[in-house]
This record gives sequence, structure tokens and C-alpha cells, in this order.
Amino acid sequence: MAAADRFAPDLLVRLERDGRPLRLQLEEQLREAIRAGRLRPGTALPSTRALAADLGVSRGVVVEAYAQLVAEGWLVAGQGARTRVAAAARQAEPRATPAPTGPRVRIDFRPGLTDLAAFPRREWLASLRRVLREAPDAALGWQDPRGERALRETLAAYLGRSRGALADPERIVVATGMTQALVLVAGALRRRGARRIAVEDPGFHIHRDALAHAGLEPVAVPVDEGGIDTDRLAAAAPDAVLVTPAHQQPTGVVLAPERRAALLRWAEETGALVIEDDYDAEHRYDREPVGALQGLAPERVAYLGSPSKTLAPSLRLGWAVLPSALAGPVGEEKLRADLGSPVLDQLALADFIERGELDRHLRRTRRSYRRRRDALVGALARLLPAARVTGIAAGLHALVLLPEGTDEAALVERALERGIALAPLAPMRVAAPGPPGVLIGYANVAETAIERGVAELAAIAGELGSA
Amino acid sequence: MAAADRFAPDLLVRLERDGRPLRLQLEEQLREAIRAGRLRPGTALPSTRALAADLGVSRGVVVEAYAQLVAEGWLVAGQGARTRVAAAARQAEPRATPAPTGPRVRIDFRPGLTDLAAFPRREWLASLRRVLREAPDAALGWQDPRGERALRETLAAYLGRSRGALADPERIVVATGMTQALVLVAGALRRRGARRIAVEDPGFHIHRDALAHAGLEPVAVPVDEGGIDTDRLAAAAPDAVLVTPAHQQPTGVVLAPERRAALLRWAEETGALVIEDDYDAEHRYDREPVGALQGLAPERVAYLGSPSKTLAPSLRLGWAVLPSALAGPVGEEKLRADLGSPVLDQLALADFIERGELDRHLRRTRRSYRRRRDALVGALARLLPAARVTGIAAGLHALVLLPEGTDEAALVERALERGIALAPLAPMRVAAPGPPGVLIGYANVAETAIERGVAELAAIAGELGSA
Repeated sequence: MAAADRFAPDLLVRLERDGRPLRLQLEEQLREAIRAGRLRPGTALPSTRALAADLGVSRGVVVEAYAQLVAEGWLVAGQGARTRVAAAARQAEPRATPAPTGPRVRIDFRPGLTDLAAFPRREWLASLRRVLREAPDAALGWQDPRGERALRETLAAYLGRSRGALADPERIVVATGMTQALVLVAGALRRRGARRIAVEDPGFHIHRDALAHAGLEPVAVPVDEGGIDTDRLAAAAPDAVLVTPAHQQPTGVVLAPERRAALLRWAEETGALVIEDDYDAEHRYDREPVGALQGLAPERVAYLGSPSKTLAPSLRLGWAVLPSALAGPVGEEKLRADLGSPVLDQLALADFIERGELDRHLRRTRRSYRRRRDALVGALARLLPAARVTGIAAGLHALVLLPEGTDEAALVERALERGIALAPLAPMRVAAPGPPGVLIGYANVAETAIERGVAELAAIAGELGSA
Repeated sequence: MAAADRFAPDLLVRLERDGRPLRLQLEEQLREAIRAGRLRPGTALPSTRALAADLGVSRGVVVEAYAQLVAEGWLVAGQGARTRVAAAARQAEPRATPAPTGPRVRIDFRPGLTDLAAFPRREWLASLRRVLREAPDAALGWQDPRGERALRETLAAYLGRSRGALADPERIVVATGMTQALVLVAGALRRRGARRIAVEDPGFHIHRDALAHAGLEPVAVPVDEGGIDTDRLAAAAPDAVLVTPAHQQPTGVVLAPERRAALLRWAEETGALVIEDDYDAEHRYDREPVGALQGLAPERVAYLGSPSKTLAPSLRLGWAVLPSALAGPVGEEKLRADLGSPVLDQLALADFIERGELDRHLRRTRRSYRRRRDALVGALARLLPAARVTGIAAGLHALVLLPEGTDEAALVERALERGIALAPLAPMRVAAPGPPGVLIGYANVAETAIERGVAELAAIAGELGSA
């Protein structure tokens, strides 16, 4: 039997034994399915043998129907090849507007990207292979919506040693990325009566929007060179606060020691929750590591993290380490949201960390990120001397403050037209005043391209009359 | 250099150059981290060489500190092996109550499980391997939150040919399982002003709860042998309805042709949305396939599906095919919920379907599911003749109605004590009256175990005095 003979994808056809010729019924149904767009151009049909067996008809019925539709131009069939729906066959299709595709990005300075070319594909595949070889069958069924026990135990140990977090597997909930972890915590807070949550200003707008979407009112509290202003925070009296103490997003400042203490004291006194986005904590270059706030007050801080900034955003994994009173409610939110995150990915990440692959990858990338950062800082000093660069002691991006009057939006737009992607500062501001600026991520751009990219940005800034 | 010498996991330690001996500072910090539980028993520490390099101290400082802590019993070190936190070292740990672990399940009759032993591990790994080999680096970065274009195109073709759905990639949103797809649609409806959603009674309680959690009020509408009662539905006048037309969950009835027409007419006239959970549609044994409702009215029906019932629940993938006016809002919900589902899994599923692996797997499992169903039906007829079995023409479970007066909850509880898991009917009922019953999933139980399991259930029913 030739391979094409055994080709048997499911095909929804229903023949009535009502006296009408089966061949005509089959032709009609296929024609109608193609016309309506249910059978899309290029779709391969089952072999005549397989479809005849499925429908309980003689093979000749299907052979003749296919031949007729080929003759009519609905189907195409090559010698020995699969019969497919003809490319031009579709007549009408209700079509939503396709997503606009922007210009091709040559130099990707968007913040929030790791060095994608350095993603350890081989090692990640090895972890997936081990998981698929070793996981018991039961692991493929319904699992604890809070996440795989193996991953929660691995994370507890990893976050303890590398971040000083005090984590217990029973107080960890695994999520589909850090943003979902935040949304789940927000949902649990809202159901317990919380209404207002303080956010940093400037701060990461995606998270601010996600909090608002989850039903909490974001209250902007200014950030200065010491991090969030804890006096203004206390005055705003929110039910919770979202902070990025290790590397403030976007300014890059570290929360000052006295502010850390004030923040935890405030939480202790008011019963408010501190949500710690441990943003970019793994990437540090010129300064000592700063431990997670959570380790100091595990019953007042919900710690959030993900491998998006250490491995790659596309893995879509994240975690929350929770005060004991919130562990149950956040687990319940996860159950109601999606019944749990993909299991094999969780087991693979546990294996990957246990084998030391994450630590090895971090050591490798830290070296190259430091070189890229140095290249960016050097190029900016030479080519855009009017800009002020901050936030470069850690993380994967620099905040580049531009001379007053620079049209930030025009700069970003013109850069994108020329294939250079970067992020404007304005969407991150709520009320905080300050100069225009852009965020330049350097982790995913080679050193030579960084130099070239900055030169092009400088040229654009010159055209705009701002540098 | 020995392998142990190069072992360099991140470890959060911060030494002050304030005159205090560095060795003592290091010892204190490690002791405190172990005492507090941040460094958990069994955690491997970096090699002395690696930690010394990280901290910028001489290796002797670390060697002496480790030796002191080994002497004190905090650490353990074997000849040439890694130094680890001692198993008994932790002094205090705030610990939430661990999840109760139930009795071991020997025979897993829970509905909603596929044959987990038949999961095509090799073929799934092959798809993952191809994806990791071939995907461009950019695929590892931030992607369209609605899902990978490749998967949405594959699904459009697959759902068209196999289910008669009229799908367009632009109107598909990929989710983390069918439940998330439902929650996203519910969120979009609520934000557009919807308040009440009809659900089938009896019906799947997990989805009912998820809808309520998402802010819609579930309104129970009775199901009879023709499916949901469309007159009662119209009288309830909800903003939307969730139905399982292909194989009603849990009764297994198929929505009757006149009800299908009435449902779509109602939706057309009132502007209400029909949410079609295409539950178990791929598994049919004694009846002709029934196409998706959505193909008849793509602008009135949101079609939801997942590979949980064809491959395995643990993959946590799902999809919604949406009316054009809802595609944008549901995509927005997905963005706000978690920024998108894992990318590599999506690409692997697209590859898996394109290569015909899903169709091949379905053909294989359909044969074994039919044998298992026949074994269950036969065993029930012989061993529990007082029970009435329904819903067996399709799907992966049977609804077993028990004689009036049977203590359904006691039966389920006693069975679980003996290692047999099955689901009670009661949680699926809202107001609909009817006899007690249990759901017996047969897809994940071998034929011999099915016979044995039914015999044990019959014995328990006898003990309870009901059969």
C-alpha cells in the first residue's frame, strides 16, 4: 500500500441512505465545505481508500467524486500525491481585518528581551526529553492547579539560595508568566476586599493596565533616585503596592535601604501587601547583589518572578511566593483562571534548574550582557552626548533621558520605520514629570549592531533637531 | 579542575569591607540563611573556588568557612563531592499546611482523562525537537498574545475539515486549555455588558464555577434527552449560553436537530452568544459525526476546543474560534490575563497536527476506547444490573444512573478509600431533579481493570444496600 493510501485525516462528511446517489452527496458536501471556507485551500484530503472505509462506501464512490471535483477545479491531485483543496477554490470567506504587520526590525532594542540567539536550545530539549522519558503516565493527566510539586520544590531551593527568598513549596503558585502571577494575586486581593493598589510612577504600564483590568484601581506613587517614595505611599493609603526593588522598572534605581525598611514597616503596621516584582534581579554588573525583600518579611510580601528575563519570554512560566494567608486564595484564582499551567514545561524547568543549567546559562549571559551594556554606554557617550543614561548597573536595558523638547514619540516612530525597535518612556509615566526618554534594551543586540543602532538613532535625533 | 570545582550556582551572599573578618561574615550569613530556611536542606553550595571568585576573596576564606559549618553540623561534605546543606540543619520554618494526599488510586475511572499510557511521547518529542531546531530566534521572544500564527492556521484547517467549523486564523485565540478560553470569552462578554449566562443542568460544574468567578451569573436551564431545553432557554433570556452539543456533559445526549435550529434562531433574534464547548466531539462510536454548530452560524457562535480529550489534559492548550466582533476583545482579555500561552508548545502542536500525528493518534485511541467502553457496558450489565447506563455513543465516559435511594456520595467515597476514583453526579446538578448517579471514565483503564473495578463498585453498592 502506498503511503498516500494510508493517509487518513478526519473529515466531517455525513451521507444519508435516502436513495440519493452517495457519490453526488459526497461531491455536494465537499463542494459546499470548500465554498464556505470550512475546507481551506491547500488542505489535504484523506486517501480514497481511507475515506471510503470511514464512510462505509465502495472506494469507487470516492474516486469518482474526487475526480469530478478535480475536473471542476475544486481539488487538485498529482500523480501519487495527496488530493488537496485547490488554492483558488475558496469563493467567499468572512474575514476579520488581519493584524497589521510593521516594518521588519533589523536592530531590536526593545527592553524585556534576553539574548534569544543564546537560548540554550540543546539543554532545554534535553530536559524535555528526560521529562518525556521519565514522567509517570499520571503526570500527563490533571494536576495540581498550583503547579507541579517538583517545580515548586526546586523553586523554593533556588529562590532561597540565589535571591534570599524564604519560599516553601506550599506557598508557591506557578503561573503562565509573571504577569499572570500578578493578575492572580490581584484577583485574590480584590475578592478579599482590596480596592486600590499603589504602582510606581514611572512604572511598567503593562502591569498597571493588567491590575486595572483585574479590578484594582492603580494609584501612582512617584519614584526618585531612592526608589518609590514611601512617605507618599503611606499618604496614599492603598491596600497593596507593586514594587520593583532590585532594579526599578524603568529607571533602574535600587530601592534604598531606608526605604526598604520603611516599606516593610508600613506593610506591617497597616496590614497592606507588598507585591515584589523581582525584576531583572539576576542581572547585575557593577554592584553587590540585593536580596529579595520577601526574605525579610515573608508574611507581608508576595514575591513574583519568572524565567522570561533569564531564559526567554516565550516559555511563559512564572511564580508567586505568597504569605500563608494568600497561598490558598491565589491557588483558587489559578484553578478558576485555567486549571493550571502546562505540566511538561514545568517539569522541564525543574529538571533544567536542578541540573545547574540555569546557573550556567546566567553566568554565560551575564558576561555577554555586560559587554553589550558597555558597548551601548560607550556608543551613547560618543554619539548622543546630550543624552543622560541611567539604570545601567543591572538589568537588560538602559533608560536614556533626552534633552527637553525632544519629540520622543517621533524618534521611536522614525527609528521603527528604519528597522530599529525601542520603547518610549511616556507610556510608563502617569503623573511624574520628567524629561523625554527611551528605553534601549541591549541584551538581544550584538555589539557591532549596538554601535550601528546608536549611530542611526543619533542621526534621527539630529533630523528632529534635538541633539 | 575537578567537576565539583566548577560547580557555581548563584548564592546570595554579601560581604561588607568594614573590618569584620570576611570568613566570620560568610559563616554568619550561611548559618542565618540555613536557620531561616532560605537555604533548604540538601541544597548544593557552590564550589569553594567558584564562590571565592564570585565574592572576590581568597579561596581559603571559603574553605575555612565551609569547614567550620561542616564541623558545626550545618553543612555536609563528602570526599570530592559537593558541599550541601545538612538534612537536619533547618531549625525553623513557617510552613503552610501541606495538601492532603488521598489514598493511592488503583483504578482511575475519573471522567475527563484520556488513555495516558497511550500518549504519543515519541511523536510529541519529535515535534518539540523540530520546533527547537527550526524556529527562528525571534519565536523565543514576545509573541502575539492571541497565539502563534502557525497554530492558528493549522487549527483553522483542522477544525474546518474535521468538525465543519468555519475558522479563520484572525478569529482564533489560543488559550491555556479550554477553561481559560471560556473564561476569556466570559470576561469579554462581561465588559460588553453581559450579566447572565445560561448553563446546562446537569452540566459541568467546573465551568459553571469558572463563569461565576469571571463575573457572569450562571442560569441553569434543564437538559432532557434532546439536549438543552430551548424554550426554557428563551424564557430565561440570558445574554449568552454555554452548551455541549456534540456530547452533552454529563448526560451524553446529542443536541437534537430541531433544538440546534431553535438555538441558532434564538441567538440570531436576540443577539445572544452561543458558546459551543465541542466536548468529546472527536470520540464517537455508534453514531454519525455531528458537525460543530459554529459552522452554521459563525457570527453567533464562539467555538471552544482543546487537545485535553484527544491527547492529554496536561498539555494545557485550548482555543476559541470567535465571531468577528469578539475576536479583538477576547484577544485583549488574553493579553491582560497572561500575555499569551507558551510558544514552543503551540508550535509543537501545529507541527504535530500538520504531520497527521493527531489524526493517527485519534484513529488508534478510538479503537481502544470503543473496546473499553464495550467492556464497561458489559460489566455493568452483568454486575450492576439495577444501574441505567447512558451517554455511551460517544465520549470517554458513561453516566451510570443508580437506583433511587442510593447514597451516591458514600459510594464515591468508599470506592476512593479502596483506590477506585470516579465522579459523583450531584455536583453537576443545579435544580434538575433526577436519580443519583456516577460518571465512569473508561479511557484510562485497561479492559481487565474495568471488569475488576465494576465488580468492586457492585460490592460497595451491595454493602450500601442499594443494588
